[in-house]
Amino acid sequence: MMQELALPDVYRFLEPGPVVLLTTAQNGKMNVMAMLWHMMVEFVPPRLACVVSNGDYSFAAMRAVGECVIAIPSVESASEVVAVGNVSGRDVDKFSAFGLTPVAAGRVSAPLIEECFANFECRVVDDSLVEAYGIFVLEVLAAWVDPEKENPKTLHHHGYGKFVVDGRSIHLKSKMP
Amino acid sequence: MMQELALPDVYRFLEPGPVVLLTTAQNGKMNVMAMLWHMMVEFVPPRLACVVSNGDYSFAAMRAVGECVIAIPSVESASEVVAVGNVSGRDVDKFSAFGLTPVAAGRVSAPLIEECFANFECRVVDDSLVEAYGIFVLEVLAAWVDPEKENPKTLHHHGYGKFVVDGRSIHLKSKMP
Repeated sequence: MMQELALPDVYRFLEPGPVVLLTTAQNGKMNVMAMLWHMMVEFVPPRLACVVSNGDYSFAAMRAVGECVIAIPSVESASEVVAVGNVSGRDVDKFSAFGLTPVAAGRVSAPLIEECFANFECRVVDDSLVEAYGIFVLEVLAAWVDPEKENPKTLHHHGYGKFVVDGRSIHLKSKMP
Repeated sequence: MMQELALPDVYRFLEPGPVVLLTTAQNGKMNVMAMLWHMMVEFVPPRLACVVSNGDYSFAAMRAVGECVIAIPSVESASEVVAVGNVSGRDVDKFSAFGLTPVAAGRVSAPLIEECFANFECRVVDDSLVEAYGIFVLEVLAAWVDPEKENPKTLHHHGYGKFVVDGRSIHLKSKMP
């Protein structure tokens, strides 16, 4: 079950640089892609930037609808994540092909993904660098986490199918939030 | 000893989302800050985006000089990284205070950091979103790795001094570069 997450806590999930999934919906057709290029931009309201290139099938929906969901998979979904990254939504309904369950979001047309431990509903707030670099600036409108997925370990891509999984945690006295 | 890295390999170091250090130099004064918000934007030439806010002491040098170095520390430098993040270059010479060794770069005025296993010399190529979001788009002009620092494990920040260290690697058949 998804539980609402306070928006000021969103950065703690994206700042570590996990591989994420990005969902869109346009004219009743959903899609999902794997995304490696994203970063936080502002704590509150939580804003992030990400790169969706015009070669990605999701690009048209991002442009036309201006909404998406950023969903964070844990290592248990690694094979599904790679499968999503290996094919285009032009050719395949990736939700049914790879056993990902779309769940209606509250604020955007794009679906949440039930198998992911965190889901962020986003709206495009700046597209001025889309043509030059594919950079979309997004604002998170609503955020959800699944408290039943305890201590999720995320994936970090090092190229050519090598993924490093979260290891041990260390705690240091930081003044950074 | 630093060894030159082929530019098309830069993304494999930044895509996983490690905590990085950013160095600048202006009027002969160097500074270093910890940076958590960055992402790749293009493979070749390697471009990335990062956020440096106008509250950061490095902001003025980024604006005026338009050059920086992105240096990637491994877990062995965790306490130095946090120390760098906890104080401002307005008040402290962080290189000498925290035992970080600046090394002259080849293409930019900002220094490399000897203790880091990878160092990327960068030039600002787009500042159109700096005022609105602090987003700088950078191009990597030269890249260096230290082959003596084997299997470096990077840090991923989860907020409030919690860092997750790289764990095990998994390999999956990905078509993604």
